[in-house]
Amino acid sequence: MAHSASKLVDFSTKLLTAAGAPDAVARAVSESLVAADLRGVSSHGVVRLGVYLKRMAEGMIDPKAEPQLERDDGPVGLLDGRNNFGAYVGARGLDIAMARAKTHGAYILGVRHSNHFGTGAHYLQQAVSQGLAMIVMSNASQTMPPTGGVRPFMGTNPIAFGFPTGTDVPFILDMATSLVARGKIIVAASKGEAIPLGWAVDKDGNPTTDAHAALDGAVLPLGGAKGSGLAMAIDILCGVLTGAGFGPSVNNMYDNWEEPQNVGHMFIVLDIARWMPLETFMARLDDYIRLLKLEPRAGGVEEIFYAGEIESRLEASRLRDGITLPAKVEDELNALGAAYGLSLNELPLS
Amino acid sequence: MAHSASKLVDFSTKLLTAAGAPDAVARAVSESLVAADLRGVSSHGVVRLGVYLKRMAEGMIDPKAEPQLERDDGPVGLLDGRNNFGAYVGARGLDIAMARAKTHGAYILGVRHSNHFGTGAHYLQQAVSQGLAMIVMSNASQTMPPTGGVRPFMGTNPIAFGFPTGTDVPFILDMATSLVARGKIIVAASKGEAIPLGWAVDKDGNPTTDAHAALDGAVLPLGGAKGSGLAMAIDILCGVLTGAGFGPSVNNMYDNWEEPQNVGHMFIVLDIARWMPLETFMARLDDYIRLLKLEPRAGGVEEIFYAGEIESRLEASRLRDGITLPAKVEDELNALGAAYGLSLNELPLS
Repeated sequence: MAHSASKLVDFSTKLLTAAGAPDAVARAVSESLVAADLRGVSSHGVVRLGVYLKRMAEGMIDPKAEPQLERDDGPVGLLDGRNNFGAYVGARGLDIAMARAKTHGAYILGVRHSNHFGTGAHYLQQAVSQGLAMIVMSNASQTMPPTGGVRPFMGTNPIAFGFPTGTDVPFILDMATSLVARGKIIVAASKGEAIPLGWAVDKDGNPTTDAHAALDGAVLPLGGAKGSGLAMAIDILCGVLTGAGFGPSVNNMYDNWEEPQNVGHMFIVLDIARWMPLETFMARLDDYIRLLKLEPRAGGVEEIFYAGEIESRLEASRLRDGITLPAKVEDELNALGAAYGLSLNELPLS
Repeated sequence: MAHSASKLVDFSTKLLTAAGAPDAVARAVSESLVAADLRGVSSHGVVRLGVYLKRMAEGMIDPKAEPQLERDDGPVGLLDGRNNFGAYVGARGLDIAMARAKTHGAYILGVRHSNHFGTGAHYLQQAVSQGLAMIVMSNASQTMPPTGGVRPFMGTNPIAFGFPTGTDVPFILDMATSLVARGKIIVAASKGEAIPLGWAVDKDGNPTTDAHAALDGAVLPLGGAKGSGLAMAIDILCGVLTGAGFGPSVNNMYDNWEEPQNVGHMFIVLDIARWMPLETFMARLDDYIRLLKLEPRAGGVEEIFYAGEIESRLEASRLRDGITLPAKVEDELNALGAAYGLSLNELPLS
């Protein structure tokens, strides 16, 4: 059955609160998870609740530590997340960065001692709704070899760009620096299909078209050395510059139960109105999009989309019709809830 | 014969000056061109002198217009290049952005009414030498279709990241958002070789492995929709936000002799010391690089490089041994110089 987004947020918030997270923390994490499900990024959705709860229970995340703004000097900020949930640290960081960008015109916030912060799109949606442009980046635990390497050394460190348009569909590009998501290789393996050369290497670092061999190996950066360099540049901004981990010192949330992740992020926020009137900017971007839509299309292509458009449409339909979770995820959520007397289907449809 | 970099700068400066550019403009342009040749990016080197001189002669570039800082509000800047050479506008923009970043901690400079500004690496080298981190972007005239499109609609808009290290080899990632440079396809066509699928489309927008068909078509963004979105995000920051052209309204310097290019750039400069002591940052980045170098290597790989390292080595060797230009380029430069009594080989070796 389909669940409304607000019901899922409510369930997740109750669950995290029951497990010991303060309400504001539980809500920020839940909103981040459900926002990902709404836009079809299910890998970053409520499927993560299990590992989040486990990390909290194991003391790998401190839900009660309030992030601390250690530097706040004109357009420069440094936030210590104090190992709270990444989505909460990110939400606090975003609030600070947006407010300061409005005061100063621009703000660059580095964040350290954080955890996996969800999708960049979730932050961008909030920034663009306030007439701000934003670039947000995060590093991540190691899943990708550098060009010339064999084994995972850095994360598929994402970078995301958001801009308001004159419509209710903003430009939101949220991309990992891998060529494809590991999930696509899992699908190919389950179907017994080969994968294109360039997606991944096997465990010895050799290029492979064998999906199973790829799963034993690693996904590759997009565009070869360009993506490899881009992932490292993001790591330098988010990790090296902030005091967070970088490369192998960002810990994996599924495998490492000894230490916090120490993820780092960076928010670069621009108050568009300092460069040109916001209305002018949005009219110009709408014009760009109009021209894009008029371009001749390749065979079989019905429409040329800009970044975030497909996800926005999915979000609108899921906000209307609800989110249908895979049975396995639904069962897992109910199992997690059972310990606290919570069941997805007994919550009122809200 | 090999020419010293300083001799090439001298020749180019004399040539541009003789053709009517003020000395500071001629020098900035020449330093940008030769810096590209030093790092092996010959497509952005002195080979461009011909078209630059022609654009100046045709009134498409105004070498006497001083760029004007129209906004300068805390960390926010907007520079009108007033259609001077891109390398000069970029040099003035860089000077402003670096000085303001030191004052405020960070500075974000948008630039409009500019022209092709050379390589991002040339600006990054100067920023990192002053302990600054920088992201620099530019848009460009249309050479690349968006994902789903058929014909060129936007430029292979480059983005570049620079960071100082503890050695004399900074981290400098300077990448176009196309998967490969058109030059690689020209080489394949000249050898009668096929190109890998994904590099380019033919004139009807169909994926092709035929290098000749690709040259009639267009290069593709790196990583499919990711690169397409990235090129557009860069266009929005450099073009839409600054008042420069964007998409099809950035004019081609080789084809359009009616209007200025109206290229836009963006410089995002961070004073590293505001986040952590510069020495600490450099030590951390050196540690990252040390770990990278220790990684196991794929078969046939002798060393894992970080971004800019290969170019730095080439630069060091060319600074020592000089730059050997292709005979065709050498002839062209001498032909250009002949009008002003200048010859490459009659200049003293400096």
